[in-house]
Amino acid sequence: MPDYDALLASHLDALRAEGRYRHFLTLQRQAGAFPRALRADGRPVTVWCSNDYLGMGQHPAVREAMIAAIREDGAGAGGTRNISGTGRHHVALEAELASVHGKEAALVFNSGFTANEAALSTLAMLLGATILSDADNHASMIAGIRNGRGPKKVFRHNDVAHLAELLAELPPEAPKVVAFESVYSMDGDIAPIRRIAELARRHNALTYIDEVHAVGLYGPGGAGVAAREGVEIDVVEGTLGKAYGVGGGYVAGSATLIDAIRSFAPGFIFSTTLTPAVAAGALASVRHLRASDTERTAHQERARATRAALRAEGLPVLECPSHIVPVMVRDATLCREASEMLLEEHGVYIQPINFPTVPRGTERLRITPTPLHDDAAIASLAGALSAVWDRLGLPRQRLAA
Amino acid sequence: MPDYDALLASHLDALRAEGRYRHFLTLQRQAGAFPRALRADGRPVTVWCSNDYLGMGQHPAVREAMIAAIREDGAGAGGTRNISGTGRHHVALEAELASVHGKEAALVFNSGFTANEAALSTLAMLLGATILSDADNHASMIAGIRNGRGPKKVFRHNDVAHLAELLAELPPEAPKVVAFESVYSMDGDIAPIRRIAELARRHNALTYIDEVHAVGLYGPGGAGVAAREGVEIDVVEGTLGKAYGVGGGYVAGSATLIDAIRSFAPGFIFSTTLTPAVAAGALASVRHLRASDTERTAHQERARATRAALRAEGLPVLECPSHIVPVMVRDATLCREASEMLLEEHGVYIQPINFPTVPRGTERLRITPTPLHDDAAIASLAGALSAVWDRLGLPRQRLAA
Ligand SMILES: Cc1ncc(COP(=O)(O)O)c(C=O)c1O
Ligand SMILES: Cc1ncc(COP(=O)(O)O)c(C=O)c1O
Repeated sequence: MPDYDALLASHLDALRAEGRYRHFLTLQRQAGAFPRALRADGRPVTVWCSNDYLGMGQHPAVREAMIAAIREDGAGAGGTRNISGTGRHHVALEAELASVHGKEAALVFNSGFTANEAALSTLAMLLGATILSDADNHASMIAGIRNGRGPKKVFRHNDVAHLAELLAELPPEAPKVVAFESVYSMDGDIAPIRRIAELARRHNALTYIDEVHAVGLYGPGGAGVAAREGVEIDVVEGTLGKAYGVGGGYVAGSATLIDAIRSFAPGFIFSTTLTPAVAAGALASVRHLRASDTERTAHQERARATRAALRAEGLPVLECPSHIVPVMVRDATLCREASEMLLEEHGVYIQPINFPTVPRGTERLRITPTPLHDDAAIASLAGALSAVWDRLGLPRQRLAA
Repeated sequence: MPDYDALLASHLDALRAEGRYRHFLTLQRQAGAFPRALRADGRPVTVWCSNDYLGMGQHPAVREAMIAAIREDGAGAGGTRNISGTGRHHVALEAELASVHGKEAALVFNSGFTANEAALSTLAMLLGATILSDADNHASMIAGIRNGRGPKKVFRHNDVAHLAELLAELPPEAPKVVAFESVYSMDGDIAPIRRIAELARRHNALTYIDEVHAVGLYGPGGAGVAAREGVEIDVVEGTLGKAYGVGGGYVAGSATLIDAIRSFAPGFIFSTTLTPAVAAGALASVRHLRASDTERTAHQERARATRAALRAEGLPVLECPSHIVPVMVRDATLCREASEMLLEEHGVYIQPINFPTVPRGTERLRITPTPLHDDAAIASLAGALSAVWDRLGLPRQRLAA
């Protein structure tokens, strides 16, 4: 008998040999105290790597909406959307998301991963389309494109000229989809959305944008970067688990397009619906961030303040136009060591980001300031990083004037 | 420009032409009143098609655990498992599930669909295995097998002799996985688990069972049908959204196998973790059903009582050894009409089950009695069905003595 465990263990050993075997840190979030949390043994930490970008995960309106749904509707949805699993919160959430994005319709999934996988694979199949995909697209988009099994072409990251070349190779009347992100979460850079959209339009391509790291954070009412720039995109995909602080994912688009995904995507059809509480909490969060700019404004200001404080220490912060603050280490082992030192000696939690999440040689600490990281937290982060940089002899960066 | 909406609309028209375009009924669940619920306009219905098989979705222990998690931990997990998203409830839930199934480890996903997709595709790839798959396997298993892109062989549903033939065609030392379900949810039949497992063992195959419609419902502590029959299966997959009444999915197996899926499956790695509330609610439910047989016993008794009441009316109930009560209509349009009449005229909600969920010509009303459907509810179900059968002139079935 093949020794299945031994076979699998050899794959795990390969990860270990490369220094990229992952240990998960258990964290007890503390509603009301974010970004402070507790480790499994009760020691306090300040979380600097959460994607609960605005702290909406502890917002009273969100938590109360969830609790009310549990009291009124109960725990689970009890079925797939078609078989008793469609509740009032799901319907209201989809209407709200469609409206936020100025689209005719929206469809909610158990995660943003499933939303991308289901939407892209279904569109590829139903349209018989070639997918033109940014080289840095997220694993969930890659999964959708791969599982759609149609032709695909990968354009160099944010390279509009390369995309133009690839589009020119295709017959004008051939169905095609240009799939890209707005904010790329690891470098924090932003796609040239307008140029991509105009180019796609000229080549008769449908546009599909992943705004997972932008919804709630940018644009009018949190509609994302494309909305901020006034660019019309055919399909917008987002998550309810990051800036919105809860969980689940969605796509928004024309009524027909959304109906087609609803009607044909196995990952949507054959899966129990999101719990009523998660739908209700997400709805409360989307509504709150639609009406309020306070969190968005504070978020950008805190990101700038964090970046400035780290730059003042000469730490190698990657320049970028978004809220992400990547500090480059460029070595898997050192990156892990820096993270461990920050955690054990400074109570600062920043998960190291290694391959395959980022390319080898670009390992980093990915820092995500929120409106709830105050000046004292930023100062102590800068001090902790500086001390770790010294201890590990990591390179500083000259201050550009 | 290709008219993308028109292209997609043509696919939707095809569904409509076949009478299988789906409208979702919006249902307001009422915690405490299950199986009664409200329609969008406030009219009451009795739900007879929920997969909240035991009514755990309204169990106070489950709801209180969720509410406590929202109060203490907050709304969302805030990250993927690796990046700040592992909480104490996730860790405890995985330990509990491993223990329920007598396995070294378990891993939780955002849904049972994702669990199957991620686990099967990852195992196929890491092991270079041929997957032997039951012809009636669920869409999520098919997705995992397809996305794993390795060789596969499909054996006729529950046909051990056919599986033996297919296994005999493969070299003894070739890695292989036999993937099947315990309770098939549409016919309610149960796989010959022991014979499949023994056969697989003789052919050096790993065994993978989907117990989505059995966990919580059968076996010691709700460990499923394989456990009830004392058969050892290598990988057990389950959902937290049906009998457990909340949401999410999981796999349980050897520590190495689970670690491999944890470390390599994109659908696990690159997705925000289940909310703390859902993990805490699921944990409470798993614990409750581990300690209590009351719900399981009542469930089986209610299924028998429902079946007997429908048989007494001469309704064509499909014979099966599980808790599912399929009543056959064998026509897509009549099935939908029967469902609509039950809903509009009798306040009975049973979603029609049409292709592709079941093969054409086997359309049915799939009825799921729970411990909370009392004698009066069963009597009124039988009366309603009988009236609808008369109105539509549907065939009755002779009572087999
Ligand atoms: C760009 C991008 N798209 C999609 C996803 C998946 O969203 P979710 O976490 O809701 O599954 C993520 C991260 O998790 C992401 O970073
Ligand atoms: C046999 C089977 N496996 C897996 C799933 C997926 O589980 P979940 O609903 O948790 O996504 C389902 C149904 O939804 C199912 O019927």
